[in-house]
Amino acid sequence: MALLVEKTTSGREYKVKDMSQADFGRLEIELAEVEMPGLMSCRTEFGPSQPFKGARITGSLHMTIQTAVLIETLTALGAEVRWCSCNIFSTQDHAAAAIARDSAAVFAWKGETLQEYWWCTERALDWGPGGGPDLIVDDGGDATLLIHEGVKAEELFEKNGTLPDPASTDNAEFQIVLTIIRDGLKTDPKRYHKMKQRLVGVSEETTTGVKRLYQMQANGTLLFPAINVNDSVTKSKFDNLYGCRHSLPDGLMRATDVMIAGKVAVVAGYGDVGKGCAAAMKQAGARVIVTEIDPICALQALMEGLQVLTLEDVVSEADIFVTTTGNKDIIMVDHMRKMKNNAIVCNIGHFDNEIDMLGLENYPGVKRITIKPQTDRWVFPDTNSGIIVLAEGRLMNLGCATGHPSFVMSCSFTNQVIAQLELWKERTTGKYEKKVYVLPKHLDEKVAALHLGKLGARLTKLSKDQADYISVPVEGPYKPAHYRY
Amino acid sequence: MALLVEKTTSGREYKVKDMSQADFGRLEIELAEVEMPGLMSCRTEFGPSQPFKGARITGSLHMTIQTAVLIETLTALGAEVRWCSCNIFSTQDHAAAAIARDSAAVFAWKGETLQEYWWCTERALDWGPGGGPDLIVDDGGDATLLIHEGVKAEELFEKNGTLPDPASTDNAEFQIVLTIIRDGLKTDPKRYHKMKQRLVGVSEETTTGVKRLYQMQANGTLLFPAINVNDSVTKSKFDNLYGCRHSLPDGLMRATDVMIAGKVAVVAGYGDVGKGCAAAMKQAGARVIVTEIDPICALQALMEGLQVLTLEDVVSEADIFVTTTGNKDIIMVDHMRKMKNNAIVCNIGHFDNEIDMLGLENYPGVKRITIKPQTDRWVFPDTNSGIIVLAEGRLMNLGCATGHPSFVMSCSFTNQVIAQLELWKERTTGKYEKKVYVLPKHLDEKVAALHLGKLGARLTKLSKDQADYISVPVEGPYKPAHYRY
Amino acid sequence: MALLVEKTTSGREYKVKDMSQADFGRLEIELAEVEMPGLMSCRTEFGPSQPFKGARITGSLHMTIQTAVLIETLTALGAEVRWCSCNIFSTQDHAAAAIARDSAAVFAWKGETLQEYWWCTERALDWGPGGGPDLIVDDGGDATLLIHEGVKAEELFEKNGTLPDPASTDNAEFQIVLTIIRDGLKTDPKRYHKMKQRLVGVSEETTTGVKRLYQMQANGTLLFPAINVNDSVTKSKFDNLYGCRHSLPDGLMRATDVMIAGKVAVVAGYGDVGKGCAAAMKQAGARVIVTEIDPICALQALMEGLQVLTLEDVVSEADIFVTTTGNKDIIMVDHMRKMKNNAIVCNIGHFDNEIDMLGLENYPGVKRITIKPQTDRWVFPDTNSGIIVLAEGRLMNLGCATGHPSFVMSCSFTNQVIAQLELWKERTTGKYEKKVYVLPKHLDEKVAALHLGKLGARLTKLSKDQADYISVPVEGPYKPAHYRY
Amino acid sequence: MALLVEKTTSGREYKVKDMSQADFGRLEIELAEVEMPGLMSCRTEFGPSQPFKGARITGSLHMTIQTAVLIETLTALGAEVRWCSCNIFSTQDHAAAAIARDSAAVFAWKGETLQEYWWCTERALDWGPGGGPDLIVDDGGDATLLIHEGVKAEELFEKNGTLPDPASTDNAEFQIVLTIIRDGLKTDPKRYHKMKQRLVGVSEETTTGVKRLYQMQANGTLLFPAINVNDSVTKSKFDNLYGCRHSLPDGLMRATDVMIAGKVAVVAGYGDVGKGCAAAMKQAGARVIVTEIDPICALQALMEGLQVLTLEDVVSEADIFVTTTGNKDIIMVDHMRKMKNNAIVCNIGHFDNEIDMLGLENYPGVKRITIKPQTDRWVFPDTNSGIIVLAEGRLMNLGCATGHPSFVMSCSFTNQVIAQLELWKERTTGKYEKKVYVLPKHLDEKVAALHLGKLGARLTKLSKDQADYISVPVEGPYKPAHYRY
Repeated sequence: MALLVEKTTSGREYKVKDMSQADFGRLEIELAEVEMPGLMSCRTEFGPSQPFKGARITGSLHMTIQTAVLIETLTALGAEVRWCSCNIFSTQDHAAAAIARDSAAVFAWKGETLQEYWWCTERALDWGPGGGPDLIVDDGGDATLLIHEGVKAEELFEKNGTLPDPASTDNAEFQIVLTIIRDGLKTDPKRYHKMKQRLVGVSEETTTGVKRLYQMQANGTLLFPAINVNDSVTKSKFDNLYGCRHSLPDGLMRATDVMIAGKVAVVAGYGDVGKGCAAAMKQAGARVIVTEIDPICALQALMEGLQVLTLEDVVSEADIFVTTTGNKDIIMVDHMRKMKNNAIVCNIGHFDNEIDMLGLENYPGVKRITIKPQTDRWVFPDTNSGIIVLAEGRLMNLGCATGHPSFVMSCSFTNQVIAQLELWKERTTGKYEKKVYVLPKHLDEKVAALHLGKLGARLTKLSKDQADYISVPVEGPYKPAHYRY
Repeated sequence: MALLVEKTTSGREYKVKDMSQADFGRLEIELAEVEMPGLMSCRTEFGPSQPFKGARITGSLHMTIQTAVLIETLTALGAEVRWCSCNIFSTQDHAAAAIARDSAAVFAWKGETLQEYWWCTERALDWGPGGGPDLIVDDGGDATLLIHEGVKAEELFEKNGTLPDPASTDNAEFQIVLTIIRDGLKTDPKRYHKMKQRLVGVSEETTTGVKRLYQMQANGTLLFPAINVNDSVTKSKFDNLYGCRHSLPDGLMRATDVMIAGKVAVVAGYGDVGKGCAAAMKQAGARVIVTEIDPICALQALMEGLQVLTLEDVVSEADIFVTTTGNKDIIMVDHMRKMKNNAIVCNIGHFDNEIDMLGLENYPGVKRITIKPQTDRWVFPDTNSGIIVLAEGRLMNLGCATGHPSFVMSCSFTNQVIAQLELWKERTTGKYEKKVYVLPKHLDEKVAALHLGKLGARLTKLSKDQADYISVPVEGPYKPAHYRY
Repeated sequence: MALLVEKTTSGREYKVKDMSQADFGRLEIELAEVEMPGLMSCRTEFGPSQPFKGARITGSLHMTIQTAVLIETLTALGAEVRWCSCNIFSTQDHAAAAIARDSAAVFAWKGETLQEYWWCTERALDWGPGGGPDLIVDDGGDATLLIHEGVKAEELFEKNGTLPDPASTDNAEFQIVLTIIRDGLKTDPKRYHKMKQRLVGVSEETTTGVKRLYQMQANGTLLFPAINVNDSVTKSKFDNLYGCRHSLPDGLMRATDVMIAGKVAVVAGYGDVGKGCAAAMKQAGARVIVTEIDPICALQALMEGLQVLTLEDVVSEADIFVTTTGNKDIIMVDHMRKMKNNAIVCNIGHFDNEIDMLGLENYPGVKRITIKPQTDRWVFPDTNSGIIVLAEGRLMNLGCATGHPSFVMSCSFTNQVIAQLELWKERTTGKYEKKVYVLPKHLDEKVAALHLGKLGARLTKLSKDQADYISVPVEGPYKPAHYRY
Repeated sequence: MALLVEKTTSGREYKVKDMSQADFGRLEIELAEVEMPGLMSCRTEFGPSQPFKGARITGSLHMTIQTAVLIETLTALGAEVRWCSCNIFSTQDHAAAAIARDSAAVFAWKGETLQEYWWCTERALDWGPGGGPDLIVDDGGDATLLIHEGVKAEELFEKNGTLPDPASTDNAEFQIVLTIIRDGLKTDPKRYHKMKQRLVGVSEETTTGVKRLYQMQANGTLLFPAINVNDSVTKSKFDNLYGCRHSLPDGLMRATDVMIAGKVAVVAGYGDVGKGCAAAMKQAGARVIVTEIDPICALQALMEGLQVLTLEDVVSEADIFVTTTGNKDIIMVDHMRKMKNNAIVCNIGHFDNEIDMLGLENYPGVKRITIKPQTDRWVFPDTNSGIIVLAEGRLMNLGCATGHPSFVMSCSFTNQVIAQLELWKERTTGKYEKKVYVLPKHLDEKVAALHLGKLGARLTKLSKDQADYISVPVEGPYKPAHYRY
C-alpha cells in the first residue's frame, strides 16, 4: 500500500483500506450506538454546549466500531479529530472507512506493517503548521512515546547536533521510531517541541500505557498532564475483566474453531485480564491452569478452583496458552518446541513481546504455514509437530476477532470522554500538573450509573439517615478511595 | 449461479462456490483431523480391510470442515461418495472445494436458494443409470423424504397417472419438492423405485430427522432400515449439548459482536440443545429465562437457577431470543413487534419454522436492512424499532459461524461411520428390518473411549470381582439400556 | 439400648431414641410440608377418597423429616404404616419421635448397631399374626432381601430341615440376617411365606435396590411385583443429582468445617450422584478429579472441565475423596495410607463397602480418634499421619448432615406415593407380574408439574397444531421413552 | 448464668459454658492447625524469639476454633491474652473451653445476653490494677468503643461530675454500655484513662470496625494507633468474599435444611461479602437478585448475570433474603409482612441492625415460634403467614453454623499477628500516630505466599530483566498501592 494521504471531497485527510466499506461501517456503528448508553448520554448531556469547540484531539486507539462511536461523540461535542490505531491488526476496515468518510481524519487499516503503523501515528499527530493536537487519547502510550522521544531527540540535536541512531537499538520497532524522528528532525527541528507546547494533556486507556506514564512521572520526564483512565473502576474492572471474558473465546473460535471444552488452558497472569480469560476458559469447559508471580493473585486463582503452576510444569500437556501479563518473555521458543502438536499460543496483553515471536521466527528450519490471516501454524523441523500462533503474537481478540463488545467499551470510552472534557476544561487553571491522575470516584460512579438502565437495573436509594450512618453523601460517592470492588 | 454440474480432471462431478479455496480447505481439514480422534481411529482400524468397497454413499449433511473429515473417512474405508448440504447456509465453501477436488462428488455452497438446495439433493442421490446410493447419511431427513415422496408419487402415477401437484400445498419448500418429483416422473417414472430397491439403509443424524423416521415407522411407511444416530449417547448428549454450548455464543458474536454479559436471554426449549444454549448464555453472564412445555425439563431448568416463564411474559424485556424446540411457530411476528429495539432473534433448531419468518417478511411496511450476510435488521413501521434476525431464521450456528467444533463432531460422526458399517455389513443378513434402530451400547461406549486419550484422561478398570458385584462384563457395557447419563 | 418395643398411649408400637423430641420434630415437619408441594398435593387430591383404606404399608427408608411427611401422606390416604430406617446413621431422632407419637409405628434411631438395625427391620415387617404388610416402600432393598432370604430358608427347611448357617458367610451383616431368619424359623417356619402371600408389591427408592431387583427378575427369583421408583426421571435426575449437589457440601461442612475452595476433590464415579457431587465441589471452588470406569461418563466429566484420572494417580495429592459408585472396594486401606494428613474420606453411595472400612479397622497399629459422632480421625502408625473418615464409611449426607432437602425429596416421594397407589389399585387385576416396572411417563411429568408452582414457574402450552407437528398429545407425555433428559 | 469469674487450677480467670468440652475443642483445634498454614508458620518463624514477651493482648473477636489457633499463636509468641467474643451467638463453646483450660483467659459462650456480652468485654479488658492491655485485637470495634466512651465519660466526670445517663439513648445496647461506664466511674474514675495510657494500639478485623476508626480519625478523636487489617487484600478479598461464599449456604443448611436450588435469593449489598453470598446462592442453583445503592457494584452484579432491583420490587416473590450491607434498616418489618410464607430472612453483616428486629418483635400480635436455637418462625396475625429469621438477625454464619473455615481465617489472622507484631515492635518509635494504617503490600503478599504450599501451588519467579521491565523488585511487592485485585 502506497503511503499517500488521501482526501475526502470535503478535504479531510485519510488513509484506509477500502472506502467502499463505509456504508457497512455506518450500519454497524448505528447498532453499536444502541449498546453504548454512556457515550450516547454524553452526546445528550454535553452536545448542546459544544465543550470541545476549538479542541484538536488526536487518538491512537484501536480503530474499531466502538472507537468510531467514541470519535463521533468527541466530534458531537465540538472537537476536531485525527485518529490512528494502536495495533497493526486491530483496525476494522469498515469502521475506519465510515469515520474517514463522515467524521474524522483516519489513518488505519487491518494488517499494517510496523513501518506503516508509525507512519499512521505521525499522520494522526500532524495537524499541519500550527503544531500538534490539544489533547491525546492514547492506548498503550505510543503517541505519547513518540512525542517524548521526539522532544528528547530535538533537545540533544539542538545541544550538539546529534541525530538519533536507529542502529543504537536491537528493537526493530524502536529503530523505526528513531528513524522517523531522525528524518523529521531534518525538516523541522522543533516539531515535537511545538507539539509539547500546545498539548494540554493525554488520557491513557490501558495498563501498559499507564505503567509507562507512572515511570515517566517517577523519573520526572513526563511532559504534560495525564489522566489514567485505565484505573477507573468502570474501566479496569469491566473492560479488562468482562471484555476479555467475552473476547478471548471469540478470538479462539474465529481463528481456530477449536472446541474449548475438555481442553487444558494455561492463562499466564491472573490480573484483571487474566481473571477474565480464566473465567471464560473455565466456563467453556476447559481445565484452567494459571501461572503467576504474585502470591495474592495466585491465591485468588486457587480460591476459584484453578491450579497454579509454572509454565514449565505444564508446557507439554496443555492445549491452549494465553498470555495476559503485561510483561515480556513469557512464552519462549523453547517452551513452544515442547508443546503438543497444534497447541494454540496467543496473547491478549497489550504488547506482542509476551510471546517470543523473534525466537520462533529465527528457529532453524521452522516452517510457517498461514492457515488464514492471523492464524499461522509453525512447524518445528525436529519433531514435525506444529503450534498455532494467533495474530503473530499480538492482541488476539483484536487481531482474530473484533475486540471487546460495545457495551463494555461504552464504560471505558465514557471515562475517556470525561477525562478529555476535564483536561480541556481545566487547560488554563493549572489544576493538572505534569503528573498522572485518576478520575474522581463520583465520576466513576456516574459512568456506571449511565449503563444500568440499558440492563433494566433499579438502584436502591439511601435515606439521609442511612447515609449519615455510613458517613457518605446520599448521592455518593459511596466508597473510600482504597476500596477494591 | 447456473445449475450446471462441473467435473474435475479425473471426471468426478461437483458444484461448489469456488474451487480456488480448496487449498485453504485442505489446511483446515488437516487441523480438524487432529481434533477428530474417533474418525482417525476408524481409518486406522478399518482402513486396511476396505469394508465399504463397492458401496455408494450419499450424504445430505452440512458440508463443513468436520463433514469433510467424515467423508474422507468413508472414502478411506473404500466407499464412493456423493454429498450435498442439508441447510442452505451451512456449507463452508473451502471445505466443499477441498472435498470436490480431492475426494468426493460435492453439490453445496453457502447461500443456496431453496431451488438450488433441492437441485443439490437430487444430484447427490443421482448415481446414474444404475439406481441410487447403497447407503444414505442423512441429517434432518431431506434425502430420505425425497425418496419416500418420490416412491409415493410414482405409485400413484402408476396407478392412475396422477402427477404431484405443487399447488396442493402452501409450503413453499414442499412445492419445490413436488415439482422436482413431478418433473422427474416424466423422464423416469421408476427412478425412486430403483433407488428404494438398491438402498440398504439410512443413518440419521438429528432429532428432527429421527422424529420423522419414527413417525414413518409408526405409520408403516418406512421403506428401508434406519439407524438413529442421534440417540447414541455420544451424539445427543454431546453434540446437541456441548456443541451448542460452544456454537451459540460463537454465532452470536460473529453475527452481532454483542456483549452477552448483563443481557436477558430467552431460550425456548430446554432439551439437550436448549440445555447447552442456556448454559452458554448463563456462563457468559446473561440472565437466562427458559420457556418449556414439558414440566420435567422445566423443573431441570429451575434447579439450575433459571427462570421458567412463557414467551409472552418476557417478550418485551429480553435482549436475545434463541429457539431450540424442534417445534414450529415459537416466535411469531406478533412477538417480534413487541420486542425491544435491536433484540436479537435466532434459531438453533434444525428447521427454520420455529421463527415466523413468513409473518415477518409479509408484515405491512416492514423494512429489511442487511447488516452483513446472515445478519438482518428488520424495522417495523409503527414503532420504528428493529429486531436483528440471524441466518434468516435458520440454524444460526452454521449460518453465522462454523457450526460445532471438530472434537464433538468426531463423536457424532464416529457413530455415523459405525452405523454405516453396520448397515453395509448386515445388508444381506436381514438383521435390520424396515424399522428404526439405535446402536448397541458397547459401540456407544467405544465411541466415547476413542475420544478420551486426546484429552489426557485415564479410565479406571473394573476388577472381575467388582464387575460381578454390579453384574456387568469387565469390558462393558456398563449401564442398562434405560440409563439416562 | 434394650431392644424392647414400647407403646404409645393409643397402643401403637415404637422404639425411638427420645420421645421428648416429638414437638421439635413436629415443628420441622410443618416447615417441610411447605417445601413438599408434591406430597401435599397428593393429600388434597387423594385424601378424600382414602384409597389406602385397609392397606398395611411397611417402609424401610431413612427416617428423616422428609420421610415423616411421606409417612403422613400415606396415612392421610388411609394406610396403616410401620417404619424402620435403611441406614444405621440416617434417622433424625426428632422426626422418628414425632411420627411414633402421632402417626405410625416407628423403629429407628440415629446410631443403631447392625444388630439393632435388623431388629428394627423385623419389627417394621411384623404386623402380628395376620402376616406381613400389603405393600413395602424400600430403599436399598433390605426389607425385600429379608423376605426373599426368609422364603428361601423356609423352603429349604421344609424340604430337608436345613437351617441357615451364619458361619457360611464372611459378611458380618449377612451373618446377622441369617441368624435372624434361623431364629425365626424355630418359632414360625412359615412366617416369610405368609408375608409373601399377602404382599402386593414393593416400590424401590434407589439405584442399589433397583439393581438387586433386576438381578432377581433376571434370575426368576423375584417373589412379587416391584416398581422401580429410582428410574423415574423426577427421582434419579433430581434427587440423585441435585440432592447430592446440596447434601455433599452440607455433610462436609457439618462434619469438618473444612474450606472446600482451593482443595483437590476426587469424586469416584460420575453417574447422577457423582455428577451432583462434582458440581458441588467445583462450585465451592475445589479442583475436581473424577475417576470412572465408563468412557461415556468420563467424557461427560471432561466436557465439564473436570480431570479424569485413576485413584492411584491422585491418591497422595487430593484433600477430599467421595465415593459415589454403587460398587465395592473403591478406596482401599492401601490407598488411605498414601493420603495426605487429614485427607477427608467419605461415601455418599448407598452401601458402606465402597470404602474399605474393614481393612482400615484391622490395619495393624491404626488408631481411631473420634472427633465427634460420625467424624473420626484414623492415624496410621508408620507415618503418624491421619485421615478423616465420615460416618464410618456410610452415607455421609445422612450420617453427618440431614440428607437431601425437602423440596427434592418431595419429587422422589410423590413418585413413591403414586407407585404405592398404583400397586394397591391394581392388586387384583393382574396388571403387575413378578417383574420390575417403571412408572409411565405421564405420571413422571405430573410429579414435575406439581413442583413448578412453588418455584414460580409458568409452563408454555402447546397448541393442537404444534402438538400434532411433533406427534404428541397436547397434555403430554411429551417425550419418547428413550429420552434422556 | 451467674456472672462470676472462675479460675483454672493454675489461677487463670475464665467464664465459659462447659469446661468438659475442652477435649473436644482441643481435637478440633488440632485439625484447624493443619488448615492454618499462615498462623503455624508465624509460630515457626517468630516463636523462638518470643517477640510478644511482656505484652498483654485483649481480643474481642468471635471465640471460635479458628480464633483459638490465633490466640495460641499469640501466646506461642510470648503474649499473655484475655479474650471475649464480639457477638452474642458466635462463640463455639468447645473452643472457649479448650482455650480457657490451656492458654488464655476467656469470657465467652454461645447465647449471651447483651448484658452478659458487655460484662465479658469488660473482663477481657480488665488486667487488674496495672491498667489495661498493651494491644487490642478488635472485631467490629466494641473493645475500642468501650475505651473511647469510657475516656469521654471520665473526662466529663472530672470536669463537672456528670455521670453518663443510660436514659439519654434509645438504643438498648448503648444503654448497657453507658450503665457499665457509669457504674465503673464510681469505683475507679481513671480506669479508662489508665487503659488509654498503656495501650499501644489496636488492630481491627472488619469493615464495620474500620469504618468507625476512620470516622474517629476524621473527627480527631482516635485515642491510639490502629491498623486496619480488614483492608489487607488477603483479608477483605478472601475472608469477606470466599469466607461468606462458604458460610452462607452452611448457615442456611444447618438452620433450615432448605433446598437452595430453584429458590429466589435476594442479596442486599454487593460488596465483598455480598459478592461471596451471591456467588454461593447462584452456584447452589438459586436465582439471585441483588439490591445496591452503588452503581459500580450494581454493574458488577449485572455482568455476572444477576438481576439488580429494589427490595420493594421483589419482596413478595423471593424465598431467601440476606443482608450484607453494613448499613442499617435494610429489611423492615413492613417488608417482612409482605413476604411469602416461610421466607428466610438473615443477616451476614457485622451488626444486627440491618434487619428491623425491633419492629418485628413489637409488631402487634406477632408470634415467635422457636424451631431450634437461632431459628425462629415469626407469624403475623393478619396473614397467618410466617417468616423464618436466623440468629435473631445477627451474623447467621456464626450464629447458625461455625463461621468461616480455618483456611481463609488463617489469611485474616496471619494479618492480625503481623499487625500486632508491628504495633508492638514500634511501640516506642513513634512510627504510628493516632491514625488508621494498613499493612504494607509486601506483608500482604507474604501472607498470601504462606498459604500457597498447602494448596499445591507453584509460583513463577520473575527474572531480573522482567522485573526491571515492569519496574518492580524481583521479590515484590508486585503491584501499585491502588491495584484492586
